[in-house]
Amino acid sequence: MREIHFTGGKTPPETFPYNELINAAERVIKELKDVFAYYPTQHKYADYSLKGYRPLREIASKRYWNREGVELPVDNIVITAGSMQAIELVGRTFIKPGDTVITEELTYYGTLEFFRYLGARIIGVKIDEKEGIIVDDLEEKLRILDSVGVKPKFIYVLPNNHNPTGARMPESNRIRLIDITKEYNIPIIEDDCYGDLDFIRDTKPKSILTLDKNRETIFIATFSKIIAPALRLGYFYAHEKYLNSILSHRWDIGTSLLASAIVAEYLKDNLWRQIERQIEAIKLRRDILLESLEEYMSKYATWTKPDGGLFIWVKLNVDVDMNRLEKKASEYGVYFDSGWKFHYRMKKLKAFRLSYAHVPPDEIREGVKRISNAVKDILKT
Amino acid sequence: MREIHFTGGKTPPETFPYNELINAAERVIKELKDVFAYYPTQHKYADYSLKGYRPLREIASKRYWNREGVELPVDNIVITAGSMQAIELVGRTFIKPGDTVITEELTYYGTLEFFRYLGARIIGVKIDEKEGIIVDDLEEKLRILDSVGVKPKFIYVLPNNHNPTGARMPESNRIRLIDITKEYNIPIIEDDCYGDLDFIRDTKPKSILTLDKNRETIFIATFSKIIAPALRLGYFYAHEKYLNSILSHRWDIGTSLLASAIVAEYLKDNLWRQIERQIEAIKLRRDILLESLEEYMSKYATWTKPDGGLFIWVKLNVDVDMNRLEKKASEYGVYFDSGWKFHYRMKKLKAFRLSYAHVPPDEIREGVKRISNAVKDILKT
Repeated sequence: MREIHFTGGKTPPETFPYNELINAAERVIKELKDVFAYYPTQHKYADYSLKGYRPLREIASKRYWNREGVELPVDNIVITAGSMQAIELVGRTFIKPGDTVITEELTYYGTLEFFRYLGARIIGVKIDEKEGIIVDDLEEKLRILDSVGVKPKFIYVLPNNHNPTGARMPESNRIRLIDITKEYNIPIIEDDCYGDLDFIRDTKPKSILTLDKNRETIFIATFSKIIAPALRLGYFYAHEKYLNSILSHRWDIGTSLLASAIVAEYLKDNLWRQIERQIEAIKLRRDILLESLEEYMSKYATWTKPDGGLFIWVKLNVDVDMNRLEKKASEYGVYFDSGWKFHYRMKKLKAFRLSYAHVPPDEIREGVKRISNAVKDILKT
Repeated sequence: MREIHFTGGKTPPETFPYNELINAAERVIKELKDVFAYYPTQHKYADYSLKGYRPLREIASKRYWNREGVELPVDNIVITAGSMQAIELVGRTFIKPGDTVITEELTYYGTLEFFRYLGARIIGVKIDEKEGIIVDDLEEKLRILDSVGVKPKFIYVLPNNHNPTGARMPESNRIRLIDITKEYNIPIIEDDCYGDLDFIRDTKPKSILTLDKNRETIFIATFSKIIAPALRLGYFYAHEKYLNSILSHRWDIGTSLLASAIVAEYLKDNLWRQIERQIEAIKLRRDILLESLEEYMSKYATWTKPDGGLFIWVKLNVDVDMNRLEKKASEYGVYFDSGWKFHYRMKKLKAFRLSYAHVPPDEIREGVKRISNAVKDILKT
């Protein structure tokens, strides 16, 4: 039996532009040649700093300009080993053991695990599965914390195509979020990992960073979700106020020039084509997944219908123990990430996340069918 | 005037195998293809872990086998972003603020800066510029620390082609080092960054890890010094006793598969040839540098004559203020790293390090001449 994995934040294997990257490698390795003998920190291509290969930072800026209509200053962009290293550097900058940070009640488990590793106290803010973080709840929680003398170090949010729910925060909520956090003088960490993957393009709200007049929001994004995770190429933007402080926590002497240069060479002429190709491959699967859920799961669950990203959040409305469901599903050869992983205090939830972008389209239906069979089996006993 | 930089730990630009890497990229990107869509942690090429691309770990093991005559187990090797990330992970594992660690009195400044960043108290052990760490001094310092109830977290040493002195520790001293640290139950961190770059090949002492019967020494090495630093590809070996603990401090989700796979593809058939090429290019420069020092600096200084590595350590025997010398040298367009940078407590030293491997051979003589002119100028005034 072929195993079907609805796990991880993976991308469609067939959109990996391997021929184009081979050509890019040929051109750029020849062009850079002996530049590789220098440390990234000691050469003009790296802008004499830990910020990384400048042409790749220019592509990050171009992507932002196109989407937001304002510039993302290249000098404030830093290339990292995936967006996860950006989260790591920001976390290490702000969090000392015992410090309080705020996230959405449900969020990326890598972030939660890392903040826990740093010894942070995490406060989760309620979210709406369609519109993301509930600003009233944030306001209330900030007021309570303030009244007991606790100042959170930052709020970490995933406003676009949220992981795990797929929610997208409306612009009006983003503006309120900015106003409230300014009032309490709390920085915002905006993780825009999935911001490129919009199925509906004309309704894109502006990013929090763009709406933040002082541009003090720290903005994290990645090339992983439009090309492939194994490249390990992400980036962040930080205001001067934070930039050097964040960089002082970086000890790896920069991101691989080899990987950065090949990807920059490919993307400089193909950014939009690659994004389109990626969106198309992912949307195809999203549609199949929604149809399959309708067909097999409508008696047992409800689920989100995201306009972008890699994830669908499924909530069971029947009495099924999640541990048992996971075990039963694995007997059927199908895997998914259980809800508790995404909860800021690992609360048991009758919910799970389906990550579908890397699953072959002709296996999605079978995968959902197996899950529904696992549910049925449990309900029978 | 062309600037001449004797700074950093850079490599000969002309040995960068760009054509071979282009060919390797073509073969391996085509071969791996959709593998890139998966996280390094989630695919067989990464051995389902944060350890990195297995074929590159196999090359690290092959290099060790050839040099040491014993196996370096592939399952205990972890690929990192340069050896610096290996130092970072090991440091984060062992050091909490206020902890004591031991290094050589002179050592790589990146390591010192990082240990200081972690809040470590650093104790330096005296070194001999030819034979490295002085074991009697280590023994005495360990005894003192023990008598006041302080247990150092580890000792960090650079036994081969030491940075900054070029010293190489004799095998008998290594054995004594192991015995003494075992007695006090202190782990050894062996940084073998420069272990490939031996000009005299038949006198190689065994690595500390090989001599350590229990194989509990943590061994760090790199592909940077045999190919190029901007690849950011290093590795470490750790015993089961430490391995998972070290990995628990890793949050970047692994090293770029793109960079790792291209380099592994090239090195699998060219490891020895690349090392030979590298040694030849570096030794050529070392010889010119030693001749030039003899010609221009013999009145003012003494220096080490290393049998390998990238560095020569110059000690002034005239009364010259190092700040003034650095300033004067920069007016002549020549740069080097001042001695205090390498000292565990940043002691002012009438010494500096010349890193020569990346300087064009026909500029080395001119560079040394400029330094001697700067010395003369200062002595005149």
